[in-house]
Amino acid sequence: MEEILKQLQDGKISVAQAKNQLATYENLGFAKVDHHRKKRQGFPEIIYGEGKSAEQITAIIEAIKAKGNDILVTRMNEEKAEVILKKHSELIYNEVAQILYWKQQTENVQKTKGYIAVVCAGTSDLRVAEEAAVTAEVLGSKVHRIYDVGVAGIHRLLDNLEEIQQATVSVVVAGMEGALPSVVGGLVSHPVIAVPTSIGYGANFGGVSALLSMLNSCASGISVVNIDNGFGGAYNAVIIDRLANKD
Amino acid sequence: MEEILKQLQDGKISVAQAKNQLATYENLGFAKVDHHRKKRQGFPEIIYGEGKSAEQITAIIEAIKAKGNDILVTRMNEEKAEVILKKHSELIYNEVAQILYWKQQTENVQKTKGYIAVVCAGTSDLRVAEEAAVTAEVLGSKVHRIYDVGVAGIHRLLDNLEEIQQATVSVVVAGMEGALPSVVGGLVSHPVIAVPTSIGYGANFGGVSALLSMLNSCASGISVVNIDNGFGGAYNAVIIDRLANKD
Amino acid sequence: MEEILKQLQDGKISVAQAKNQLATYENLGFAKVDHHRKKRQGFPEIIYGEGKSAEQITAIIEAIKAKGNDILVTRMNEEKAEVILKKHSELIYNEVAQILYWKQQTENVQKTKGYIAVVCAGTSDLRVAEEAAVTAEVLGSKVHRIYDVGVAGIHRLLDNLEEIQQATVSVVVAGMEGALPSVVGGLVSHPVIAVPTSIGYGANFGGVSALLSMLNSCASGISVVNIDNGFGGAYNAVIIDRLANKD
Amino acid sequence: MEEILKQLQDGKISVAQAKNQLATYENLGFAKVDHHRKKRQGFPEIIYGEGKSAEQITAIIEAIKAKGNDILVTRMNEEKAEVILKKHSELIYNEVAQILYWKQQTENVQKTKGYIAVVCAGTSDLRVAEEAAVTAEVLGSKVHRIYDVGVAGIHRLLDNLEEIQQATVSVVVAGMEGALPSVVGGLVSHPVIAVPTSIGYGANFGGVSALLSMLNSCASGISVVNIDNGFGGAYNAVIIDRLANKD
Amino acid sequence: MEEILKQLQDGKISVAQAKNQLATYENLGFAKVDHHRKKRQGFPEIIYGEGKSAEQITAIIEAIKAKGNDILVTRMNEEKAEVILKKHSELIYNEVAQILYWKQQTENVQKTKGYIAVVCAGTSDLRVAEEAAVTAEVLGSKVHRIYDVGVAGIHRLLDNLEEIQQATVSVVVAGMEGALPSVVGGLVSHPVIAVPTSIGYGANFGGVSALLSMLNSCASGISVVNIDNGFGGAYNAVIIDRLANKD
Amino acid sequence: MEEILKQLQDGKISVAQAKNQLATYENLGFAKVDHHRKKRQGFPEIIYGEGKSAEQITAIIEAIKAKGNDILVTRMNEEKAEVILKKHSELIYNEVAQILYWKQQTENVQKTKGYIAVVCAGTSDLRVAEEAAVTAEVLGSKVHRIYDVGVAGIHRLLDNLEEIQQATVSVVVAGMEGALPSVVGGLVSHPVIAVPTSIGYGANFGGVSALLSMLNSCASGISVVNIDNGFGGAYNAVIIDRLANKD
Amino acid sequence: MEEILKQLQDGKISVAQAKNQLATYENLGFAKVDHHRKKRQGFPEIIYGEGKSAEQITAIIEAIKAKGNDILVTRMNEEKAEVILKKHSELIYNEVAQILYWKQQTENVQKTKGYIAVVCAGTSDLRVAEEAAVTAEVLGSKVHRIYDVGVAGIHRLLDNLEEIQQATVSVVVAGMEGALPSVVGGLVSHPVIAVPTSIGYGANFGGVSALLSMLNSCASGISVVNIDNGFGGAYNAVIIDRLANKD
Amino acid sequence: MEEILKQLQDGKISVAQAKNQLATYENLGFAKVDHHRKKRQGFPEIIYGEGKSAEQITAIIEAIKAKGNDILVTRMNEEKAEVILKKHSELIYNEVAQILYWKQQTENVQKTKGYIAVVCAGTSDLRVAEEAAVTAEVLGSKVHRIYDVGVAGIHRLLDNLEEIQQATVSVVVAGMEGALPSVVGGLVSHPVIAVPTSIGYGANFGGVSALLSMLNSCASGISVVNIDNGFGGAYNAVIIDRLANKD
Repeated sequence: MEEILKQLQDGKISVAQAKNQLATYENLGFAKVDHHRKKRQGFPEIIYGEGKSAEQITAIIEAIKAKGNDILVTRMNEEKAEVILKKHSELIYNEVAQILYWKQQTENVQKTKGYIAVVCAGTSDLRVAEEAAVTAEVLGSKVHRIYDVGVAGIHRLLDNLEEIQQATVSVVVAGMEGALPSVVGGLVSHPVIAVPTSIGYGANFGGVSALLSMLNSCASGISVVNIDNGFGGAYNAVIIDRLANKD
Repeated sequence: MEEILKQLQDGKISVAQAKNQLATYENLGFAKVDHHRKKRQGFPEIIYGEGKSAEQITAIIEAIKAKGNDILVTRMNEEKAEVILKKHSELIYNEVAQILYWKQQTENVQKTKGYIAVVCAGTSDLRVAEEAAVTAEVLGSKVHRIYDVGVAGIHRLLDNLEEIQQATVSVVVAGMEGALPSVVGGLVSHPVIAVPTSIGYGANFGGVSALLSMLNSCASGISVVNIDNGFGGAYNAVIIDRLANKD
Repeated sequence: MEEILKQLQDGKISVAQAKNQLATYENLGFAKVDHHRKKRQGFPEIIYGEGKSAEQITAIIEAIKAKGNDILVTRMNEEKAEVILKKHSELIYNEVAQILYWKQQTENVQKTKGYIAVVCAGTSDLRVAEEAAVTAEVLGSKVHRIYDVGVAGIHRLLDNLEEIQQATVSVVVAGMEGALPSVVGGLVSHPVIAVPTSIGYGANFGGVSALLSMLNSCASGISVVNIDNGFGGAYNAVIIDRLANKD
Repeated sequence: MEEILKQLQDGKISVAQAKNQLATYENLGFAKVDHHRKKRQGFPEIIYGEGKSAEQITAIIEAIKAKGNDILVTRMNEEKAEVILKKHSELIYNEVAQILYWKQQTENVQKTKGYIAVVCAGTSDLRVAEEAAVTAEVLGSKVHRIYDVGVAGIHRLLDNLEEIQQATVSVVVAGMEGALPSVVGGLVSHPVIAVPTSIGYGANFGGVSALLSMLNSCASGISVVNIDNGFGGAYNAVIIDRLANKD
Repeated sequence: MEEILKQLQDGKISVAQAKNQLATYENLGFAKVDHHRKKRQGFPEIIYGEGKSAEQITAIIEAIKAKGNDILVTRMNEEKAEVILKKHSELIYNEVAQILYWKQQTENVQKTKGYIAVVCAGTSDLRVAEEAAVTAEVLGSKVHRIYDVGVAGIHRLLDNLEEIQQATVSVVVAGMEGALPSVVGGLVSHPVIAVPTSIGYGANFGGVSALLSMLNSCASGISVVNIDNGFGGAYNAVIIDRLANKD
Repeated sequence: MEEILKQLQDGKISVAQAKNQLATYENLGFAKVDHHRKKRQGFPEIIYGEGKSAEQITAIIEAIKAKGNDILVTRMNEEKAEVILKKHSELIYNEVAQILYWKQQTENVQKTKGYIAVVCAGTSDLRVAEEAAVTAEVLGSKVHRIYDVGVAGIHRLLDNLEEIQQATVSVVVAGMEGALPSVVGGLVSHPVIAVPTSIGYGANFGGVSALLSMLNSCASGISVVNIDNGFGGAYNAVIIDRLANKD
Repeated sequence: MEEILKQLQDGKISVAQAKNQLATYENLGFAKVDHHRKKRQGFPEIIYGEGKSAEQITAIIEAIKAKGNDILVTRMNEEKAEVILKKHSELIYNEVAQILYWKQQTENVQKTKGYIAVVCAGTSDLRVAEEAAVTAEVLGSKVHRIYDVGVAGIHRLLDNLEEIQQATVSVVVAGMEGALPSVVGGLVSHPVIAVPTSIGYGANFGGVSALLSMLNSCASGISVVNIDNGFGGAYNAVIIDRLANKD
Repeated sequence: MEEILKQLQDGKISVAQAKNQLATYENLGFAKVDHHRKKRQGFPEIIYGEGKSAEQITAIIEAIKAKGNDILVTRMNEEKAEVILKKHSELIYNEVAQILYWKQQTENVQKTKGYIAVVCAGTSDLRVAEEAAVTAEVLGSKVHRIYDVGVAGIHRLLDNLEEIQQATVSVVVAGMEGALPSVVGGLVSHPVIAVPTSIGYGANFGGVSALLSMLNSCASGISVVNIDNGFGGAYNAVIIDRLANKD
């Protein structure tokens, strides 16, 4: 911004041009697509699919692709995905993760040396775990999946401990009582991003039980994202992974 | 009851006598002391000390002792205990457990072959764990204490696992995220009574976090009592212990 | 485990064999079936049917049966049950209890001398009560059902009291205000496992009212499981029943 | 009101007089004392003592007495009561009920033939039960106290059942799980006013557990007032008692 | 009960007969129909229709009718009502109130001189208000309906005030902020039964907002039933109405 | 009212006439249409469409139109709107805003000089934002829409700041964390009406997260309406706009 | 801002000067005093006294006074006020309102023609009502106080209605069930700022009951601020009052 | 662990020695000090001071120092700190942060090239922010403090943006509506650890408002720790800082 001020002062750019350069988004009417985000945050704008129509998503996808950026749409149900895929067959849809994406070839090279461990407690947590795993992969990280290792059968976790310990960062997904991040957090020296899921019933209150467990963890090195927010868990892991593996 | 009906029918007892036999409590005005409880439930009435004055507790103690029953007062602060001890120096006060009690010599013999494991997660859970341990001992069970074995350092738990596994029943006390009963529950084949504590801060909400964890445990064989209810955890364990060890 | 360490030390087994013996589960990809559980906990792995596809459940059933273990699937709706029954007609489906199971003949002999009383407050609590009763029977206990004896017509309860009192352990199921376990708990000397149900409306909050009543019970000897967790209530009762009736 | 309109129309009263007759309160600046309430509601204004200074209460008392009305101040702690009693020694203070009151002799005659049963579950609920009992007596009803008859020892309740059943209306006070009104409600044919108390700990949440139990009662004929609102319970009972016993 | 004891003692009845007389309900297997309730509580058993099948309800109806009692089924949807009406065309179904009922001719005579005012705040509260009004009528009270008089247009209430004031008791039904009972309660001298409804959205939380308003009412003489419990409101009003109008 | 009293006193009107003039609503049986509201509050009665049938709404519309007043129906789904439009084709339906309305020509002239800024955080908040914008326009204010300017890309907000700052009043609509009103509130000198939306998932709790953010805003000059209450936000803004722009 | 850009472009100011003009606050280390606020928002920075030491507050006061701005400190207890008054005796302390302030003489002239009605429900709400009233006066508005007019005695409100109706804007303060704003809102045509207070007990939950009532009000034209936020209510009212009365 | 197994197999160590090597904690009776943690997690055991006595803390400190490890005690009030400092004058106490610590000289060298930005919204959040800042410094990271930059005066944040953007990771501390992390999260490309504080009142619910805001943030790259958990925020930041700056 200081640079733009100087260019303006030096007469190199006009006030209009200065304004233009700050106009870092594209106004689609119903949405303002944030083209500036890749520069500002390291990733292009990611589309949250829930509550948007196939038409709205298509329009945003086209605006992003027009700038040469990659596409990542989360919370994408199959029905809407099919509508979009008819027009944009180059996109890839992952049904379990409910993710629609497109990556440029040149981005395909894994930039990081380490990997993210996506750990989940039970079979029912799969959708959220896969949202995390696929997000991390699309954003350019390597992922190891360690699934169904909940604390009620702790030997399954201990058996896979080394693989988790050697990761750069873990995303630990759990519903029910959400105890897995505490146990993992006590056994590793890297950051643990805890993702509570809404799996459970009765006094689970749609994931509140797991969320509270994770916030109150007696292990250090654990931070938490929203219930079922596999994407958020992965995003945090990826930016840590990048920091850790940049050269 | 059927027996009393028959005795009445046979003219062996009068209506007044029948009524008397059903009048199983003593009316102190402010309280009705339940002398029938030992027959009905296996233990004499236990006094919940909180919210009762030293005078009220003394009156109830004297009514119970007059019937030759043992005394157990829980949630008893030091100040009130001292008032009562001046008059009844035969009572014993355990400050950590906040328990005041008196046992007849003949009752002192441990009746059960097995033992109850009282397991706790952290140093801060001590008061509740001791309320459980002392209650169980006063009610006649053998107790093993396994303390400070929370899930954030799971090796401490695994190191003491055998002692827990060989108990007849476990009382597992934990605050914060309350994950310990789930891990213990997955490693033992006996009943686990989970006692959440109010230890924690912020999104712990006075023990709600631990309570929900325990209710939502993915391990089987776990049942839960109220927050900080060490007494209740012990009582359940003792009646199971008696069932398991009766000859 | 110590034994395995010694065998290893003595050269009786190799490191690989030691590892194998600890690898106590079977990895189906989406799930890790815990074959070790029968040894560790006394029962084979039980399948929670909700949120799993018929295909996933079938795969897990086959993995468990291949080890010669009994099958118990809870929260099983009719539709999925029918799919599985087409392939595995030897399984039995109980629609009210929403349970699919299979027991080996040799296991059919009731091992315990006593019985579990499954008590419920109202007709609407039937599904949860039957989940408890059928679970207990499949796990090998004798069950007496005492239904529709809620506290609003206490004479119905008192009329059936003797049958409840003579049980080894009670599972008491109630929705609405959930007062039944308190009343039963004051009248019996054995453990009461309280199961709140989500039956009710308005300020019932999906069973929270009944859950809180049970956690705050002024009767001793009551412990609580999650809302609608008939299975959990039964499981706790069965392991107590086994302890009480082992020879 | 129609009458006032007619008098105005007939010229019997002036607009000012009509206005005056509607000006049914006295403005003390910090409070507007409602002198109209006795006519409108059958009782003079009752003073809620909490959060008012001894000076404010004294001023309101004097305004009410000046109109020849009785005095009833609830939630009155001892300290403030003593200040007021120094000036108004004709008032009577009940410490357990935390009530300060004054009744005209002529009002002292009990107007009703029946009585209100004030029933409470435990010794700790005494303060609230006495607030109800004393309020009802000051407002002119006969009261029978049946205390410490909680559901955990149901024989104590059944033993006193007849006295409760013969009341015109019951005020049933209970903390903890708050189950008593449901049991009483199922055994009587008159209205039951349920008063939850804040007695309890942990998952009691300051009386919420008892409140929810009472709102969700499966017995008919129960209505509920706020937690610890012994006054409200009594007030409702008294107006029912008056309706039932008016000639 | 004492009478039965005496008859037994006098040899007038056998133990079996005594037992029979206490067996005051009929066991349908899935339900225990409480035939004793009319004697004990003044009304025959009322059926809560929600969660019961048409077959179950039919069986209970037939058991009650066999004893010559009136029928009242609440929370009855149209579909199930039609099934039952095919077999029992003598029943009457009120769709707005969701009530199915049958009254004996001799009962049809209104026993009470006064009437119950059923007051509701808005058009959306109609279903609950009608549940109250129809219940009260079926149980034998006269009812005046004063609808759509919510506090946001207080002149509509004031205009109908006299009719409300002259009732024996009011049932006041309101959703949203639930302020109507407070205003009515301040203007009448009879008991007000407040019924919160689940009408509203957002921070209404399914009727919690209205429920809390009513519990916290600064007016005296208000008691509250569960959210949407029009039946409960009416039942309380009817037993008060009977007390007030008995001769 | 004083005037009516005087006219009555002067014999200019009869008691019946006086009563008539106070009867300011029309009784449709299921509803009392408040014709007095335009005089009392400045706008005719507005119809809340949810939970009312097309027939009920039609009847109310016709009653309002018969008095020559404008029509505004909110929370109107398409299906019901179509039924009404068949009969009243002069009405206009806005599908995004879910609003059905009709305005007299003479009212069409914008009365105010300033404008209301309707600001929203994300594309998903559109329905609520449009409910606010269309309501404000129908009620006679000018509206500027500034959409999709949530705080996660603050440059989009800053870029549109001047347009917001120059408004008379802002309606700021946001879901998720609901931070937008705080940021806007710190940058403008006019009143901000904050409207939380239910957009979000997990720990959003149906808009509670946004609602709490807005109530706890550290910026001054913010007041809040119910979750998703776009209408309420607009109504407040319009009456402020009128105050500010009246001559 | 555009202006600064232009001045910079024209070489009239340097980059440093441009930066300086944006540095609109003073850094005291523990706080950044916002001197820009008067220009940006129309009032100088207001100090929230709770949780700040007398020393910190003194430092901020001196920084603000040094710029010639007025002082307003809210939530100021007497103890800290006295410390500050010793040094700054020109300040004025209002104990009921817990406000410390200082106004320049020239500001003392009331700028607005209309007035703000501060209305409160009960005597206990006085502190919050006075916080609102004094804040509004210090910020330059005229205030009319209408106190103790809660809905339980609605004639007190109706008697003062005209004074409320003629205000430019009302601040309505209420605890308990918080119904007053709904009733007032239905009777006036100007904006109502509703302020819930924490006055109440039991199911009041520290003001939540009143807060929910106000958010769910069925009256239009009501917006809500945080519990006990008398300051916020007044601030909103003052900026509306200014808009309405500017010339 | 595999190595120990091999050494055991090779006869290099005995079973007792193997056991000893796994006994990685020191049993103080009331606590098990985890000496293994530095190896397992990269930091020695950190002491949570709340709820522990000065004697207990001293014993743990001495056990840790005996192993040559650094000391960090959080939530340490001044009173207890002084007791410990009398015996261990080499420790340093930071009163604002409530932290007691001791670092070896050799550890004093900053290992990381980057720095952690500790950002806080208001003066009242200082205690938590300092807990974070001091923790991070003791654990070996460089810290930049950017305080009092809450969103209500966003220019204060924008003015310090560059310093925040150039950090390796940010810890963002905020109470009230907790919006700051969302705004920061949208402006930086590194991980943001959000720490909600309990600062606020009314509908803040002890920090729940801020916590929910942070969990629901629409910005990516934000993860959350418990309310007031400044330590946890810092711990997460430090392990990320180490990953990012290791060579």
